[in-house]
Amino acid sequence: MDAYVAPVEDYRFLLSQVLGFDLEMAELGSDLDTELAVSILDEAGKLCTEVLHPINQSGDEEGSRIVDGEVRTPAGFSNAYATFRDAGWPSLSADTAHGGQGLPFVLQLWLDEMLSASNLSFGLFPALTRGAAEAIAAHATDAVKSTYLSRMVSGEWTGVMALTESSAGSDLSLIKTKASPQADGSHTITGQKIFISSGDHDFGGNIIHLVLARLPDAPAGVSGISLFLVPKFLPDAAGACARRNTMAVGSLEHKMGIHAQPTCVMNYDEAIGWLVGEPNRGLAAMFTMMNAERLMVGMQGLGVAASAYQQAAVYAKGRSQGRGASAASGTVAIVEHVDVRRMLLDVRSFVEGGRALAGWVALQVDRARKHPDPDERTRADGFVALLTPVIKAAFTDMGFESAVQAQQVFGGHGYIREWGMEQLVRDARIAQIYEGTNGIQALDLVGRKLSMAGGTVVDAYFALIEGDLDRAADGSIAKNVVTALETLRGITVLLKGADPQTLGAAAVDYLRMFALVSLGWMWLRMECAAEQGSTPLDRAKIDIARYFATRVLPRVSGMAATLSSGPEPIMALPVDAF
Amino acid sequence: MDAYVAPVEDYRFLLSQVLGFDLEMAELGSDLDTELAVSILDEAGKLCTEVLHPINQSGDEEGSRIVDGEVRTPAGFSNAYATFRDAGWPSLSADTAHGGQGLPFVLQLWLDEMLSASNLSFGLFPALTRGAAEAIAAHATDAVKSTYLSRMVSGEWTGVMALTESSAGSDLSLIKTKASPQADGSHTITGQKIFISSGDHDFGGNIIHLVLARLPDAPAGVSGISLFLVPKFLPDAAGACARRNTMAVGSLEHKMGIHAQPTCVMNYDEAIGWLVGEPNRGLAAMFTMMNAERLMVGMQGLGVAASAYQQAAVYAKGRSQGRGASAASGTVAIVEHVDVRRMLLDVRSFVEGGRALAGWVALQVDRARKHPDPDERTRADGFVALLTPVIKAAFTDMGFESAVQAQQVFGGHGYIREWGMEQLVRDARIAQIYEGTNGIQALDLVGRKLSMAGGTVVDAYFALIEGDLDRAADGSIAKNVVTALETLRGITVLLKGADPQTLGAAAVDYLRMFALVSLGWMWLRMECAAEQGSTPLDRAKIDIARYFATRVLPRVSGMAATLSSGPEPIMALPVDAF
Repeated sequence: MDAYVAPVEDYRFLLSQVLGFDLEMAELGSDLDTELAVSILDEAGKLCTEVLHPINQSGDEEGSRIVDGEVRTPAGFSNAYATFRDAGWPSLSADTAHGGQGLPFVLQLWLDEMLSASNLSFGLFPALTRGAAEAIAAHATDAVKSTYLSRMVSGEWTGVMALTESSAGSDLSLIKTKASPQADGSHTITGQKIFISSGDHDFGGNIIHLVLARLPDAPAGVSGISLFLVPKFLPDAAGACARRNTMAVGSLEHKMGIHAQPTCVMNYDEAIGWLVGEPNRGLAAMFTMMNAERLMVGMQGLGVAASAYQQAAVYAKGRSQGRGASAASGTVAIVEHVDVRRMLLDVRSFVEGGRALAGWVALQVDRARKHPDPDERTRADGFVALLTPVIKAAFTDMGFESAVQAQQVFGGHGYIREWGMEQLVRDARIAQIYEGTNGIQALDLVGRKLSMAGGTVVDAYFALIEGDLDRAADGSIAKNVVTALETLRGITVLLKGADPQTLGAAAVDYLRMFALVSLGWMWLRMECAAEQGSTPLDRAKIDIARYFATRVLPRVSGMAATLSSGPEPIMALPVDAF
Repeated sequence: MDAYVAPVEDYRFLLSQVLGFDLEMAELGSDLDTELAVSILDEAGKLCTEVLHPINQSGDEEGSRIVDGEVRTPAGFSNAYATFRDAGWPSLSADTAHGGQGLPFVLQLWLDEMLSASNLSFGLFPALTRGAAEAIAAHATDAVKSTYLSRMVSGEWTGVMALTESSAGSDLSLIKTKASPQADGSHTITGQKIFISSGDHDFGGNIIHLVLARLPDAPAGVSGISLFLVPKFLPDAAGACARRNTMAVGSLEHKMGIHAQPTCVMNYDEAIGWLVGEPNRGLAAMFTMMNAERLMVGMQGLGVAASAYQQAAVYAKGRSQGRGASAASGTVAIVEHVDVRRMLLDVRSFVEGGRALAGWVALQVDRARKHPDPDERTRADGFVALLTPVIKAAFTDMGFESAVQAQQVFGGHGYIREWGMEQLVRDARIAQIYEGTNGIQALDLVGRKLSMAGGTVVDAYFALIEGDLDRAADGSIAKNVVTALETLRGITVLLKGADPQTLGAAAVDYLRMFALVSLGWMWLRMECAAEQGSTPLDRAKIDIARYFATRVLPRVSGMAATLSSGPEPIMALPVDAF
């Protein structure tokens, strides 16, 4: 594969010309500016290019495996993790109160993009650690925090989330793992968990599992689930990894992709753990972790698409095949063929639109955390909650489709392992499934998020888009975005207060429409910004904005036509007839 | 995985209630009837269920490999091929003049569906043999035919098509393999071919390669390519495999899927071969083979989707997760959830619609071959030519999407190898690429097929659909099909006589629209037929017809909106900016 190129110039364009980064930072009382932010992203990009991408394909071929009961990651992973950790990347956006650098979340999310683009399997290790640390920071006792938190923030120790059991996946109410209180205030945890990403590794340090389990007196269902911190090693008073806890990797899953990532079956056999948060309120504590992870998983879709685009563009410019449009021309590079360009632009218009939208949402995360005005914090928090399922599901669906499309540019070579494109497809596929399947995300959007605060959050979001539309110049893509937004709004009105089956029948199409309109909004903002400039990047943005507006956005009309038929055609067929 | 169930009752429904099989056969002078046809399909289905499906997953795990310079297929494949061959399946639809059974092509295409559903890697061996035999029958000399044809028709010997070179894929004009005439009328062939499916194996018998190469005096480009028959073993006068030809497997490709299928790099080193067809007219001869293969490849998409549907439906009925729609209900099977049903019905409405359309096209193949009226033969041949790229591209795109969708029903288990769903996704992916990428198929449809016979073929096809619409009852799905057909016709008018870039910009969306309308037409016919009956199958057809009409067909409007923007938004971005 060609080397991964970090999209640093695109980040700069977004921060300085589109997202108003410097003003945002000033509003939040930070003196960070675009130049410093870009230099940080540039450093991260170098690490991804030089350290992580070179071991992505070999990691897939070799895979993680079990040696003497412990996970051995592929060659180079342990050293790469040490480099990543020692450079301080794990603590980038963590709260300074816990030893983090407190840098804006937009840097975190774009770092996640680059990690996913260069090595998705690797990126999961720090991402899960970060999510676990956030749950601990928000819900654990001071004693637990003082032992674990700073070591996880620094990346010295890693974190894991252990939710799923063989009979409890999307439905966590069915969890059976048991917790028994001990006299010293700890608990013993007994049960089996499956699909545990990063469940074990050979990076050194401790591995901190956050495990969902039931207390003896717990009520049935979701209101009887508690969260426990279960470390691989029980630390002594000095925090050293003193004693092995009674937990073990049962086996590694053999998967379609992310072979370098050890997906463990974990057995907890009276393992010692500590309650995190209130008894029976474990699901709420776990959702602190899940929500952070969902944005990150969206970045996995985006990152793989970005990587796939780069490879496909290089291939399309270098591969000669077929004649040009004029009869006189000889063999041309396949990028000259209109259908090849269509494939490339489908991918690129998603990638750059998605990168902008992720940046905007990440700035809302910062506003929600740090804005001096509590109303602004609430408002921003609402936008983050609204957009989280959209980013998780649409970015991973479009990310997978993009990887498939980029693979198609390679023709037969795309199907051959050595070219690396089929790995991107296999790796991207998991992101549509884990951290809540994309169907679950869509139900979250239509079932919970649309009705937040009486529907005012979604109304405020649409009003934001409308504000930019009103300001847009004639001749811009605004008219295309207006059409799509009006269609989306019409469906949104129909869905307000609809019954669960109507919502369920609309969910997946609605989420995609919502994502396309949001990407269209970002393309409008990018087009307007680029009209002020004259660099090749500015001119490219204008061309791609028009591509997105005319070739991608109109699909909204077909989705609207589909979902307005309601649930009846879906529910008519009797169960036995399936 | 659960056992594969051959869709025999669906075939019976289509033959007897939808496609008018008995009348068609009578018109072609055959006394074959539905009952006999179904019993043949039933036998084929048993073989697929009992012999081929059980070695599909193990074949993927083990893969084909090279031992002492020759290909060793996975355990069970050689025995399975012997069973398949000895039962006479290779000769099913071959011309009786060449030792075939001369049975209708609809049986062949549905056999292809079942082969692909149960074991795609296996199915390629007989499919390629059949295509090669057809090219030989149509173009080779009597001497060549008498040595090779009947042995290939019986499946004693297998066939291979060797087109692609590392610099010549979609663009065969760039082929470099050389042919030198010898004094005895034979030629020596020297060069390297890649991506040669079934290039070698351990099934016994000879392996007959049809190789594209250039004669010494050949003009450049496509009009300088000739076709040669190059056998692995040079037969003696009695037809025994007497002497090894100077050709060898250089290596096997490591692929995303179809691991059991040996995809060979083939080196021909002054290998002896015989010209098939006229010098420099090799591409025309090869297209005899390609066209037959393209319908078969479409069946690969359909077959994998059918298999994936079966697995997902069983899983969805057996996996309990989440609550039902009413608050009182406990945990329910996931098939009760509206979004899971949506996924299942997307797949099933494609599978059953596609099966019907394939049956209809296959009957046109028979009419083109056997109808007593030459005008009817021409008319039917036009329909086959028109629908071939549609079936190849849309069925493999929708087949892949269906496999992905069915995998999604399994949640995390779908990503784990042992469940088998991820293999279906990996295997299905190749069908979108080989035998002419789906982009090439779309260009064939808009660039060549729409303008066949001055556009009268496509007009006649639309008129056929319109005839059924006029006859349809009120309350049927006819109104949905009318809307989609009118949209398609509008775009078709716009494309007539359009320039190549406009055609290229529209091609892929247009092909999908064409496919959806065609599937809608089949669902209309199935709905009308089912309205006459009262079995559970009849009632299910009515429900699924309505699903397709309201939840799938309306996507045509979004595609129309997209493609009517023309090529400008695709071509604006300069090459350097990609």
